[in-house]
This record gives sequence, C-alpha cells and structure tokens, in this order.
Amino acid sequence: MTRDQLFEQIQRKRSYLCVGLDTDIKKIPPHLLNHEDPIFEFNRQIIEATSDLCVAYKPNIAFYEAHGPKGWVSLQKTLEVIPQDVFTIADAKRGDIGNTSELYARAFFEQMNFDSITVAPYMGVDSVQPFLQFPNKWVILLALTSNPGHDDFQMLSVVSHGKSYFLFEKVLEKSQAWGTPENLMYVVGATRSDYVERIRALAPDSFLLVPGVGAQGGSLEEISKFGMNSHCGLLVNSARQIIYASQGEDFAEKAREAALAVQQEMDRYLNDYLPA
Amino acid sequence: MTRDQLFEQIQRKRSYLCVGLDTDIKKIPPHLLNHEDPIFEFNRQIIEATSDLCVAYKPNIAFYEAHGPKGWVSLQKTLEVIPQDVFTIADAKRGDIGNTSELYARAFFEQMNFDSITVAPYMGVDSVQPFLQFPNKWVILLALTSNPGHDDFQMLSVVSHGKSYFLFEKVLEKSQAWGTPENLMYVVGATRSDYVERIRALAPDSFLLVPGVGAQGGSLEEISKFGMNSHCGLLVNSARQIIYASQGEDFAEKAREAALAVQQEMDRYLNDYLPA
Repeated sequence: MTRDQLFEQIQRKRSYLCVGLDTDIKKIPPHLLNHEDPIFEFNRQIIEATSDLCVAYKPNIAFYEAHGPKGWVSLQKTLEVIPQDVFTIADAKRGDIGNTSELYARAFFEQMNFDSITVAPYMGVDSVQPFLQFPNKWVILLALTSNPGHDDFQMLSVVSHGKSYFLFEKVLEKSQAWGTPENLMYVVGATRSDYVERIRALAPDSFLLVPGVGAQGGSLEEISKFGMNSHCGLLVNSARQIIYASQGEDFAEKAREAALAVQQEMDRYLNDYLPA
Repeated sequence: MTRDQLFEQIQRKRSYLCVGLDTDIKKIPPHLLNHEDPIFEFNRQIIEATSDLCVAYKPNIAFYEAHGPKGWVSLQKTLEVIPQDVFTIADAKRGDIGNTSELYARAFFEQMNFDSITVAPYMGVDSVQPFLQFPNKWVILLALTSNPGHDDFQMLSVVSHGKSYFLFEKVLEKSQAWGTPENLMYVVGATRSDYVERIRALAPDSFLLVPGVGAQGGSLEEISKFGMNSHCGLLVNSARQIIYASQGEDFAEKAREAALAVQQEMDRYLNDYLPA
C-alpha cells in the first residue's frame, strides 16, 4: 500500500485507528472455544465488526507463534479475511544480519502478504535495508517504545559530532537516510507524547505507529495535536480496549462500539488538527 | 542446562563449537530434495555427523519461519533429534513488551524446549526479564554484533553519570543486574575481537556467543586468547563453513571433517588459554 492510499483511507473513514489483534486464547469468549480454530474465528468476527472504523490491523506475532505451527495457520487465515484496502502490520520486531532479514521479509511480505513489519534498530542499517527493497511494503522501526524499559537505552544521551541526542533521536535521524516517508514509519509510544514535537522535527513527514493510548495511559488528544502532519501521519493502536470489550457472545458488537467511540474522537481531531 | 553442565560438556568434548543450522533449501544437496522434509533430513544428518564435536546447535529461526507453518514443523523435528546433552540456541532475536516477551519465551522454552534464545536489548529490562524467569533457560543478549551495521548504534558514545561508554558497553553493564552468569550470555562478534578485553572487564564470568569466525573474517585464536574465562565462557558459532562444506552426497562426512578441524584447533586453545 502506498502512503497516498493510506491517507485516502484515513480521510474516507475519518479514522487513524489501528486495531491490535493480540488474540489470547485465555481471554477470548468461552463460547468460541468449540470452534475448530477459535483464534481465527475471534479475529474474523472482530474484523467483520470493525473494518469500516479502522485503517489498520496489527497482529502481534508472539500471540500466534506461541501456538506453534497451528498459530501460523490462524495468522495466515486472519490475513486472508482482512479487506484489501486495510493496512496490515506484522508486529514482529525482527531484525538480523542482511541475508537473514531478507528471509524474514519474504516470510511476512510474500508468504503472508503483510503491508508492513515492525523492526528493531539495534543491529543497524544492514539489518533494516533488506525489508526496504520490497515495493509498496513498509518498515516500522522501533524508536521510542511505550514500555517502562524504554528508559534503559532509548533515553540514553548519545554524543555524535559534538552534539548530544537521546538514542531514540539518533535512531530517527540516522534511519532517515535508509528509507523515505513512503516506506519507513516509526514506533513512538503515546506514553511519551512530551517528545512528539522533537520527533516531528526529525521526521516531519513520516507516519508514526503509536501504541500506549488507553490501557497504558497515553492521551489520544495529545498525540494527535502534536503528531499530526499533512498526511495525518499517525496510526494509533488500540488492542485490549477494543477486542476484549466484552467476554460474552456480544463481543464483536461491543468491540464495534469501542472502535466507534475512538473513531468519533479521531474524526474531531482530524477536523481540529489536520493541517489544511 | 546449567553453566556447570555446559562447561562439563566443553571439557569432555574438548570443544566450544556451536554449529549454526542456517538451513537454506537452495543450498542443501540436491539429492535431499526428494525427501518429504528436506530441511529436517539435512539437519538430521548434520547433527548425526557432528554432535560429538560440538557443544551447541543454533538454528537461525528466520530460515524456518520463511517456510510458514511447515518450517516450524521442520524446526520442531530438528530439536527432537539433537542429543539431550547438547545446548540449543533459538537464534530468534526477539524482544517485546513484558507480556509479549513471555509468550515468545513459552514458545521457545516450553513448546520447543530450547535451552536459550537470542534477545535484542533495545526495549530494555521488561522486554528481557520475562525470558529470565524460566529455570535453567538462558537469554543471549545482543551486545556487539558481527555485521557492518553494528557501527550505526552499538558503537555510539553514550554518556552516563559523567562517564563515556560505547552503547554496547552500556548494554553489558546495565544488563548485568537483570540476570547472572547462570542465565545470561551475550552475543559478541568475532569481527571485533579488539574489544573482547573491554567486554571481559564488564562481564568477566558470562558466556559469550561468538559469530563471525571464518566466513566473516574473525580469528578463532584471537577470540579464544582474549575471551576465555575459567568456565571457558565461549561458544563460537560456525554455520556455512561446516554445514555447506560439500553439496554432494558426502555432505555430512565433509561437515564432520570441517567440524573436526575446528574442534582440534579448539582443543589446542583450551590447553593454551583456559585459566588453570
């Protein structure tokens, strides 16, 4: 998917919501457990109930990998029922030496036809570039994550050419040369919306994938106000709050209600903060 | 596996060789392609031919994931034919927020019974600790990798409490508090053996998993001389040089010859450099 297609979708749906498909067999409604593939069945109903309100789905790969080979089958089937116009994110946080990253890229981009994959930056340029060779596919590079551990390394002061940066800023700055706003996004946690202005100074045109709104305490309004650019430039993820809105037989309906509430809030922020 | 059991194996076999099972369907001998599961059959024969000469096997997970669900079946079957006393490393370079890392840990430690997994440090303590909760299982944290991109971030100068470090040193220093030499190792590329003394100052008792000897240009003698500690403390990986020693029907025999040459060299270094 191109950046223009993504932005067109955002304008049409008046939403920049990404629904996290972190589907946990222990948390899905008990009545689904009789299905042959309960995880797929849960996802299928969530997708059917929310795909006109969100612009992206993001399965966290750990939730599927934890089930071994059959988890990968559930994931592949899930991908197949996501409408073509919705952006798909493999939240896999991969990254390895060049030829190995290329294998990961083939697995997620060709075998499973994801639009994008999250990648960890620690190993540097040759661990990221193999993912950037695929036309209309995206890397979403970890910059500033929403978990408490982001403090350990991402916030370290780094000295480079006599100037001082946070490490996550150096990741943003250096990686700008590896890709373009047409194939490279960044993970920026909503729990650190105080840094969004600095991030926008370094990556003004890039899309940001924003976890941490809701359950983790980040504010949707703050991130929208300081993070929105002329292509919207935001995909705000919500998982638990939407997919586990109810544990009853009405789970899909309740998920839709929760997604609708977020979409309506986003509609207001698109009115208020999208640059003309 | 405990550190003492690993060291006992090293002394018994006079080897600290780790064989990388980076099994690529395009590189295995053509006569194996008639087998029902050529990747497993290749691994099975390599393991049978080398398991008395090496102390660890390290499948890089990308090579299996690239084949979708059936790749995971090949991986699981491979694990089952590795002798119990040989250390197993899931080279997966995972790492995610706490509850997600725990799912990865369960996948690799419980479902597949690996002894260890490689983990990327960028997300910090809560992305690593879930892996450290499993008794006799190990985290192998990326510190200084062997690829050219290690220069981008790992070698940045970081200022902390008024002192200047390389980022990889900060990773070593900080993570020492998360685990112990009984459950935490580090990846240190042989291509930077010039830093091994500095690394040993920060992590004197830890095992180091060392890629980059051979094809990537690192010297086995250098790394052995400067890296060995009283428990040996080294697992030196070799993949291509051993598993692709021949593309003919004699591939397993040739792999054994290549592994034997490395083991004999290691035997000498254990004599010369293992502290009394």
